[in-house]
Amino acid sequence: MSYSRRGFLTTVGATGGAGALFATMGALGLAPTAEAAARTPFEPPRPSDFKLTGRGAKKVVVLGAGIAGLATAYELGKAGYDCTVLEALDRVGGRNWTIRGGDRVTELDGSTQVARFSDGIYFNAGPARLAQWMVTMDYARELGVELEVFTNSNAQAYIFNERAGMTAPVRWRTAKADVYGYVSELLATAADGGALDGKLTAQDKERLLSFLGGFGAIGNKASGFAYTGGERRGHAVDPGAGEQPGTPLLPVPSLSDVFASGVGQRFSFELGYDQAMLMFQPVGGMDAIPKAFAHAIGKHRISLRSKVTKITDLPHGVEVEYQDKTGRTRKITADFCVAAMPPHILARTPHNLGPDVQAALATPTVTSSGKIGLEYKRRWWETDEDIYGGITNTDLDLSVVWYPSYGYGGRRGLVVGYYHNGANADSYAALPHPEREKRAITQGMKIHGAKYRDELATSVSVAWKLQPHIEGAWVGWPSRTGAYQLLNKPAGRVHFAGDWLSYMIAWQAGALESARKTVTELHQRVLTD
Amino acid sequence: MSYSRRGFLTTVGATGGAGALFATMGALGLAPTAEAAARTPFEPPRPSDFKLTGRGAKKVVVLGAGIAGLATAYELGKAGYDCTVLEALDRVGGRNWTIRGGDRVTELDGSTQVARFSDGIYFNAGPARLAQWMVTMDYARELGVELEVFTNSNAQAYIFNERAGMTAPVRWRTAKADVYGYVSELLATAADGGALDGKLTAQDKERLLSFLGGFGAIGNKASGFAYTGGERRGHAVDPGAGEQPGTPLLPVPSLSDVFASGVGQRFSFELGYDQAMLMFQPVGGMDAIPKAFAHAIGKHRISLRSKVTKITDLPHGVEVEYQDKTGRTRKITADFCVAAMPPHILARTPHNLGPDVQAALATPTVTSSGKIGLEYKRRWWETDEDIYGGITNTDLDLSVVWYPSYGYGGRRGLVVGYYHNGANADSYAALPHPEREKRAITQGMKIHGAKYRDELATSVSVAWKLQPHIEGAWVGWPSRTGAYQLLNKPAGRVHFAGDWLSYMIAWQAGALESARKTVTELHQRVLTD
Repeated sequence: MSYSRRGFLTTVGATGGAGALFATMGALGLAPTAEAAARTPFEPPRPSDFKLTGRGAKKVVVLGAGIAGLATAYELGKAGYDCTVLEALDRVGGRNWTIRGGDRVTELDGSTQVARFSDGIYFNAGPARLAQWMVTMDYARELGVELEVFTNSNAQAYIFNERAGMTAPVRWRTAKADVYGYVSELLATAADGGALDGKLTAQDKERLLSFLGGFGAIGNKASGFAYTGGERRGHAVDPGAGEQPGTPLLPVPSLSDVFASGVGQRFSFELGYDQAMLMFQPVGGMDAIPKAFAHAIGKHRISLRSKVTKITDLPHGVEVEYQDKTGRTRKITADFCVAAMPPHILARTPHNLGPDVQAALATPTVTSSGKIGLEYKRRWWETDEDIYGGITNTDLDLSVVWYPSYGYGGRRGLVVGYYHNGANADSYAALPHPEREKRAITQGMKIHGAKYRDELATSVSVAWKLQPHIEGAWVGWPSRTGAYQLLNKPAGRVHFAGDWLSYMIAWQAGALESARKTVTELHQRVLTD
Repeated sequence: MSYSRRGFLTTVGATGGAGALFATMGALGLAPTAEAAARTPFEPPRPSDFKLTGRGAKKVVVLGAGIAGLATAYELGKAGYDCTVLEALDRVGGRNWTIRGGDRVTELDGSTQVARFSDGIYFNAGPARLAQWMVTMDYARELGVELEVFTNSNAQAYIFNERAGMTAPVRWRTAKADVYGYVSELLATAADGGALDGKLTAQDKERLLSFLGGFGAIGNKASGFAYTGGERRGHAVDPGAGEQPGTPLLPVPSLSDVFASGVGQRFSFELGYDQAMLMFQPVGGMDAIPKAFAHAIGKHRISLRSKVTKITDLPHGVEVEYQDKTGRTRKITADFCVAAMPPHILARTPHNLGPDVQAALATPTVTSSGKIGLEYKRRWWETDEDIYGGITNTDLDLSVVWYPSYGYGGRRGLVVGYYHNGANADSYAALPHPEREKRAITQGMKIHGAKYRDELATSVSVAWKLQPHIEGAWVGWPSRTGAYQLLNKPAGRVHFAGDWLSYMIAWQAGALESARKTVTELHQRVLTD
């Protein structure tokens, strides 16, 4: 079966006639046009849905103003549901958190950082990127959130594997040239020598060699298909005018050295379905999304600093007890509840949903993650290193260094100095902020030198396990049966929603898809109850 | 020599001591920091340069307000030179041309199109992208031109090779998954089978197999290192909430079909030193660059609609005759002239620079190129196909389809329906605009279906060989000796500048580097004359 899918279509055509052929082509998205992969179908509830059934919209209390909770209240609200959102933090968005100058970062150990970022500088401490196929893009359009490219990969950024013996970073473009060059040399040699004749026809072989010649920029057969470098690696002096053709970047490392460096191990990242460029971000900060949701929902429907203390499922409704911003205990009753809080926080909240639900809520494991935002006095990565956005990957405990996807050519800028999880995140989380900064800078200097320390203006770090009412970056399930399935169904009149109930954990799209599923189920229930 | 460059540095260290070692490391940009490739050094002329020599700034007439001419007048002007720029067109920028609603496109055949684009829609008919390492980025910073990402490649865009038998486009991400998968399967099989033992040590082989496992997402040795598809290819139904893990995009074509389709032949483009992402563009249109230059130079110094008709090198100056906007012939005298016009236009302009210069000006061959800008009533590539920016590559006579790098999620948008050169450009150039549009739409429907025709609002096309006073897209030299070298030197008091005198032909950076070279030489001459 080739890209033409001709075989399959011919079969359908033969058995079903031209009509069936074209219907199938349409369904496959092949002809007359190529369509996107289908997202899970969603029909938003509408006010008119109630007309035929004679039923009315219900009152719903939504627990948590993260992305799942906001999307739930937004979609139900469009149909006329009377929604109230309770949120323990003093802001909407949950892990979608953009930090700007003046914002406070208080962690569970009691420490507080006050961000001293300059005007126009922001730090997306949580989610930072959107893939084009994700439903988040649709919500951005619907809510009027302006988008720009998030620079998830950049040929000018570096790879630096210290443990593999590298003592200097290498640019992604150079690493790709070398790895693809040697891979092509090796495969061309093997194929031409007949080693793959069991797998390749003569025509396959010819086409493969033609591909490898270009892909690896290797020599011809007479030269042994040798990879010897070339302009893709970069230049020591760039091409210019007059007698300046450009000076190649040398030396070209040996095949053994290239594979020993491990640079090629990084390449898979940008092939991932959820990470391949192009990626996007809202202009001005990721929190444009929760802010737009909150605006559409109506701020009077959202109670901030309202911590849920008890959930009681009743025969004909739900009662939620919470502590309001004054510290007073209050109660709210509704027809339904959508619990869109992290499962491990729900597991600590008193409820009457039964031991199976309680065990299920305690099932997923919580992952640590941390990020630091480093504001610099000047954009030295642009002026000194010709890096405009993108990500440097390293085996240092930083994992990555992100260069900003906004403010190109400006005065100051914010670099994400680490974004790591697991053990690295835990070890940085255990440090007070000044120590985190110091350690991040010490490591980053191995890549960028003394200016990485000397040009620093200020920084803020977030350890997600230490964030009140969140206490983790995301969760993982031991399996997708049992607990996961149980919580994907309502417990009495309490429905659950969150990225943790989707196959896109740690993505806002997961929270949004889960909210849509829950909204659909709740609405169906109201229409048929 | 590995990425650590340790061997080389150790040698230097041994012979020169630690001081020499660190000096060398600094020069190589290895430690303590990694630096960019050097651009050709440039010291802008400054007013203070004249103090020591007792000389004064001179009067310079610049021919052409393209990028080279503007940069020349800008750099000389900063040092106090009295510059006048003569430009035949009614705008600055030359081939840097952004077309908006109301703009007129008149071609040499006498035809005129009036652009009917909506507000906010623009079409970069000439240059459209900047590489990070190019000096154009530095000028954007210096001139305050705001930049954003130009989406030069996108995993969601397509490859469609009709002549190779494809009947439907395939996304770049799918093509990469399949090509890398089969390349990895083949190379792992060959290496593991011992076919490359002459080139690989046991350790090399182990590392190579580890790399290929991830790069190709292939099976292990027991499964014959088989490539069998996977999530990188994309999905028929995307991952979602609850019981929706995502449905893989099937079927996976055979190795023979993948290489027969030729999709892999497209991959080299994004590895090029000048084309690898990330690329950039000015916000609001490429002409932000010439406009900023013109503003900095002072508009009173630029005479539009002023066509040069004669260049006379004199013993102590230069006289330039031109036809002004009223049609009157005028003369301007200056100490020096910088001719920053296309060489084939200069070759037609009377001058007294001698037969060698004349022969040299007639030496380069002129390349055709054409672009069409298609404004659509809705952004169907985003809403229907999840393509936000990027480029579809095809062997159709369109060569490429570009999706816009601005206005994501908005209402309307402008697709570049072709950008081709050579024979394809000539054959479209020979058609009146409505026929160009019709042909481009007919071809593009093979990729995007009927909406490519039905949703079209309006279009504008530019055939560069038919553009008055430009008459070509760029030029090529038969060699870099002889004519190229001659014109890289002044002819009397006439200096030349343009991308055609650089190793970055067809790039604004080439024009800028050439202008810097010419400015430097002219200034040195003034200081030492």
